[in-house]
Amino acid sequence: MNKLTKDIRQAILDSGLRDGMTVSFHHHLRNGDHVLNMVMEEIAALGIKDLTVNASSLFDTHRPLIDHIRNGVVTHIITDYMSAGIGSFISAGGMEAPVQFRTHGGRPFDIENGKTPIDVAFIAAPAADPMGNLTGKLGRSACGSLGYAMPDAKNARFVVAVTDDLRPYPLTGWSIPETDVDEVVVVDSIGDPAGIVSGTTKITRDPVGLSMAQTAVDVIRASGLLKEGFSFQTGAGGASLAAAKFLKDVMLKEQIRGSFGLGGITGYMVDMLNEGCFESLMDVQCFDLKAVESIRTNPRHCEISATHYASPGAKSAVVDSLDVVILGATEIDVDFNINVHTDSDGRIMGGSGGHSDTAAGAKLAMIIAPLSRARLPIVTDRVTCVSTPGSTVDVLVTQKGVAVNPKDEELALRLKDTGINVMDIHELKELAERTSGVPAKPAIGERIVADVIYRDGSVIDHIREVRA
Amino acid sequence: MNKLTKDIRQAILDSGLRDGMTVSFHHHLRNGDHVLNMVMEEIAALGIKDLTVNASSLFDTHRPLIDHIRNGVVTHIITDYMSAGIGSFISAGGMEAPVQFRTHGGRPFDIENGKTPIDVAFIAAPAADPMGNLTGKLGRSACGSLGYAMPDAKNARFVVAVTDDLRPYPLTGWSIPETDVDEVVVVDSIGDPAGIVSGTTKITRDPVGLSMAQTAVDVIRASGLLKEGFSFQTGAGGASLAAAKFLKDVMLKEQIRGSFGLGGITGYMVDMLNEGCFESLMDVQCFDLKAVESIRTNPRHCEISATHYASPGAKSAVVDSLDVVILGATEIDVDFNINVHTDSDGRIMGGSGGHSDTAAGAKLAMIIAPLSRARLPIVTDRVTCVSTPGSTVDVLVTQKGVAVNPKDEELALRLKDTGINVMDIHELKELAERTSGVPAKPAIGERIVADVIYRDGSVIDHIREVRA
Repeated sequence: MNKLTKDIRQAILDSGLRDGMTVSFHHHLRNGDHVLNMVMEEIAALGIKDLTVNASSLFDTHRPLIDHIRNGVVTHIITDYMSAGIGSFISAGGMEAPVQFRTHGGRPFDIENGKTPIDVAFIAAPAADPMGNLTGKLGRSACGSLGYAMPDAKNARFVVAVTDDLRPYPLTGWSIPETDVDEVVVVDSIGDPAGIVSGTTKITRDPVGLSMAQTAVDVIRASGLLKEGFSFQTGAGGASLAAAKFLKDVMLKEQIRGSFGLGGITGYMVDMLNEGCFESLMDVQCFDLKAVESIRTNPRHCEISATHYASPGAKSAVVDSLDVVILGATEIDVDFNINVHTDSDGRIMGGSGGHSDTAAGAKLAMIIAPLSRARLPIVTDRVTCVSTPGSTVDVLVTQKGVAVNPKDEELALRLKDTGINVMDIHELKELAERTSGVPAKPAIGERIVADVIYRDGSVIDHIREVRA
Repeated sequence: MNKLTKDIRQAILDSGLRDGMTVSFHHHLRNGDHVLNMVMEEIAALGIKDLTVNASSLFDTHRPLIDHIRNGVVTHIITDYMSAGIGSFISAGGMEAPVQFRTHGGRPFDIENGKTPIDVAFIAAPAADPMGNLTGKLGRSACGSLGYAMPDAKNARFVVAVTDDLRPYPLTGWSIPETDVDEVVVVDSIGDPAGIVSGTTKITRDPVGLSMAQTAVDVIRASGLLKEGFSFQTGAGGASLAAAKFLKDVMLKEQIRGSFGLGGITGYMVDMLNEGCFESLMDVQCFDLKAVESIRTNPRHCEISATHYASPGAKSAVVDSLDVVILGATEIDVDFNINVHTDSDGRIMGGSGGHSDTAAGAKLAMIIAPLSRARLPIVTDRVTCVSTPGSTVDVLVTQKGVAVNPKDEELALRLKDTGINVMDIHELKELAERTSGVPAKPAIGERIVADVIYRDGSVIDHIREVRA
């Protein structure tokens, strides 16, 4: 007896998938993922319609979804992130029902509390055994952590694992146990390794980015948080990575032993672990090959579920214990609200991911952003879309100066007389406008194309149609 | 912010525990456990009454429960195993409501499907961090796997971890994540190491036991299952361990590479792993220090939840993939029904544990038992209590001969001409009676003191009061 099923079509038939149901996907294979497209193509061929796709993130490689939306196969999307390829289609009014954007913590919360039940979860599994023990750590499509897929596997009515590397039972070191899996389908390839993880993530060489990174580290030092037991998360952007690099240098020089690094994990965080800056890494997603290799071999590099990472419904999550997070922004307004969902024209090209979860949890939530990008000011009167509320953001670092949220009186005091150029955020806004000009109001219509659902379940903003 | 609470009393108050609710405990600390008694004493002192205690097993060290039953603090017990210290009190009619006996697989099934909801779970945690990441692998009270506690932690409304080894956040290699834990209480000692695990488990030196063990291995060889990919579970009794030892010798000599060893794990199974008989161990509970050391250091020695071990409600469990299990019996009848709940007098002194789960799952479920113990025949017309139905039992090995269940025609054929002394089970019964005499019928009353609930939820037997 085993759970091997001959192909995806058969697994869909076995799952009992019918019109109007919900299917789910995870995004650890990122822009290299083949599974979502393979599955949706079979679903479309079977004539099933009116589905909700609940995907932890959607990338440009998933653009075939656009046809499934046009054909009525997919009528609702729930996701935490959507890159511009699909985002611009949604922004142009391509789907009738608004997209439901959640956060990486809010998504598992709502899967677990029953708000967003999943009928059939499809788990891209870099390695699997015939009973459905699954891991992301092995195989030619290895992606490391499968953290975002865990709540889907645990809670979906029917779970199909799709793998291109079948291993003997029992697979050890499973990310997801057989207890959660109904069927296993072996395919030729679940993904393109080049798109799954970058070979290496690289720090910026741009002087503006390097300057912001240095300032970021200066602010962290001044905050008083950089001491024994320090914990840290940063993104995979060039300036964020440069900040990690500079931070490492400081920690090594000053012999500061932190407790953990969190998040999407890059090779830079692995270096920090291996060089003694952290006791452990808590990893919900690997961003590069070095992180994949580390999570496979180093027991102090721990795989965590999305629930453990960030769910506000968990009895606690790692974000609740986080000291400092460095985050990006496409816009920040004078109330420190952050937009990471749209560009300045209002077109969808992102999503919260873990942005608002970590901002809410961290003692110091820092935004790094240049004053302007492509001649558009980043600091504005009012963000086009509120992704992360300003009440959870502590400080903005730009290449021209640093602005502290007025709620953070202690931080403002600490930054005094440090040589850091602290400015009022209104001053930064004016500086940005002097450099780039005040942009024309984007041509935004009335129709709502997406709801931005904050981690607590409240709708904190709507994204409206962008007229061509 | 952390979850540290000053003492057990405060945690009970915080939990909202009230009359009529259910508290749960796990038994990885076995006869060394201090936590159940400490907690129940505080509950009693708080005047809370009419509780259900759902414990994965109860040992003699938990005899203070008897007073709590007498005083009305505890009015219902749900457990998978109860040693004679409490069992004889129950058998004498000491508690009004019948004990509900479940199996190690049926217990998590009914916790997860809502039949036996838990209000407050108390988790004895050999190591914990202040946010409630817990492990059994570290600390002076290390017990290895915490498999039986996982479903409690995941499903209880309120979860209290009790530890005597607080470690910095984040504890890595957690058995139970902080997402499931509400409060952490630090106490002087959660258990007596001498009672938690035996220093070493020892194979029998008794010639009867050794003879049965040798026959057991002969039967396994003859069954055709002992080949590449072989999987195996055995108990910690002396004859079972001897069988493991003899099996190891055969596997090494014949270069048979098995897939996994399962169960409660002893040092003998660890030796089999390390010497190449198995690719991995799947461990729901460690029986000795060697197993604890192995699960801490060897990634191929895997901790599994009770659900993963044996739940019939899981999409699959490891028992479903098991080739051979060696089990004990206090009685076996001519229909191959097994009693492991009571002695021949009908007094409670055990329970199914994983007995009926593994019997149901394994391709070959073998019972090893001497024909008689203490002058009482083991093979009888009808067991005093049906713990495991004969339909799931394949073969009985005694020192005088081997009986094959008539349903297993292929096995009977395979044992022909092997030199193994195959007898009809009725012959073995007569032989037992010739040696030990036909025992007097036990003095069993009418009143039901326990229900034996099979892994599928059906009541397969009742245990009745034993008159003094």
